[in-house]
Amino acid sequence: MTLKLVIGNKNYSSWSMRPWLALRANDIPFEEIFIPLYTGAADKQRILDFSHAGKVPILVDGEVTVWDSLAIIEYVAERFPEKRLWPEHPAHRAHARAVSAEMHSGFAALRNECGMNLHRPVRAIELSEDARANIARIEEIWADCRKRYGRSGPFLFGRFGAADAMFAPVVHRFRTYAVAVSEETQRYMDAMMALPAFAEWTKAGLAETIVIEKFETA
Amino acid sequence: MTLKLVIGNKNYSSWSMRPWLALRANDIPFEEIFIPLYTGAADKQRILDFSHAGKVPILVDGEVTVWDSLAIIEYVAERFPEKRLWPEHPAHRAHARAVSAEMHSGFAALRNECGMNLHRPVRAIELSEDARANIARIEEIWADCRKRYGRSGPFLFGRFGAADAMFAPVVHRFRTYAVAVSEETQRYMDAMMALPAFAEWTKAGLAETIVIEKFETA
Ligand SMILES: N[C@@H](CCC(=O)N[C@@H](CS)C(=O)NCC(=O)O)C(=O)O
Ligand SMILES: N[C@@H](CCC(=O)N[C@@H](CS)C(=O)NCC(=O)O)C(=O)O
Repeated sequence: MTLKLVIGNKNYSSWSMRPWLALRANDIPFEEIFIPLYTGAADKQRILDFSHAGKVPILVDGEVTVWDSLAIIEYVAERFPEKRLWPEHPAHRAHARAVSAEMHSGFAALRNECGMNLHRPVRAIELSEDARANIARIEEIWADCRKRYGRSGPFLFGRFGAADAMFAPVVHRFRTYAVAVSEETQRYMDAMMALPAFAEWTKAGLAETIVIEKFETA
Repeated sequence: MTLKLVIGNKNYSSWSMRPWLALRANDIPFEEIFIPLYTGAADKQRILDFSHAGKVPILVDGEVTVWDSLAIIEYVAERFPEKRLWPEHPAHRAHARAVSAEMHSGFAALRNECGMNLHRPVRAIELSEDARANIARIEEIWADCRKRYGRSGPFLFGRFGAADAMFAPVVHRFRTYAVAVSEETQRYMDAMMALPAFAEWTKAGLAETIVIEKFETA
């Protein structure tokens, strides 16, 4: 039975992007179910019919329904152990989970001020102190991971994995809001943008024509 | 080598409570390192010396340092598999991770409006529509889990586990802000409050005398 992944607009839905990338970059086949976000009650009901949490992404695997980007990635990691979404060494895996969960529950200022919006013209904006602290912390996380695990590849733990999927939308935020980053950060962003799955999502997002007004402010 | 868990004030630190409970309720020995929150640069530096994320909780296991409540719980679940912090059936485990990650990354309105504060006099406050929707969703999650898995115990997946640890601070929020809940929700709250580890944390929190002014507003 093919996996089904319910996602929102590729242009805007940073949460949807994460498990989509985790699947696609690992050549795990899935059927994509697109539900446009914030169009009104009918589409919202379609989301609710899949999951009472009322949010995308949602993964359906036969009888099992998993919502929430991080929980989906954990599920995929267990279901396809040969893809090694998490690092194999327990200490490295713990580190990958720490940065992933830190991302999952934090960085509210950056998220609010720099919403993911692929088609937005590249342009810097004034950021709050909290958002600037968020950016500094993300640059630190990336540099620290790449320094420790970078021998085996350009991603956070070498090859592309769960932690990269969790941080991928940030690469678009940094790019679109013209955030001044270190060379080291730029190298990580370049590696991400060169990943075929990342490029595929981006291309599809840019081809979308739906505009969500409330996400077009900054 | 004994595990070390760095935590903040038991009266206020909802994030610290989660892994503390996961350890204590499962009789996993650990040394507790208390760092009072929001006292200024010196204590903040003590947190930063453990983890650059700059937040508690932090778990130290010999050479391994894990921060973030959910990542710590994942680590403990792997390190002590005999404690079965997650349900054994893959579909139930996926469900437990979905509700845990939903909690971890969401419910911002409830968190902001009803900060955990054990010594606060029990009193209802006016809540925003978002906070009320958060409460309804949490009641739905709890009822749904207990209906499905309740045969083997009063907790979300039967016996006390990772998902319960993630939601435990909400029990204090509902209690302290006198949230009107269903009987079903009250039964879950009663089961939680009867858990010796929960009672132990609560007693210790109430014995603390440090007041953090910014958390005493609501
Ligand atoms: N914690 C969730 C958050 C998901 C989320 O907030 N999704 C947004 C779009 S990116 C959504 O579905 N919004 C639709 C709505 O609220 O109606 C996750 O990681 O999957
Ligand atoms: N995502 C983190 C959040 C932890 C967090 O926000 N901790 C707060 C206290 S409850 C903290 O350490 N604040 C101290 C500070 O920011 O200086 C987790 O789940 O552990």
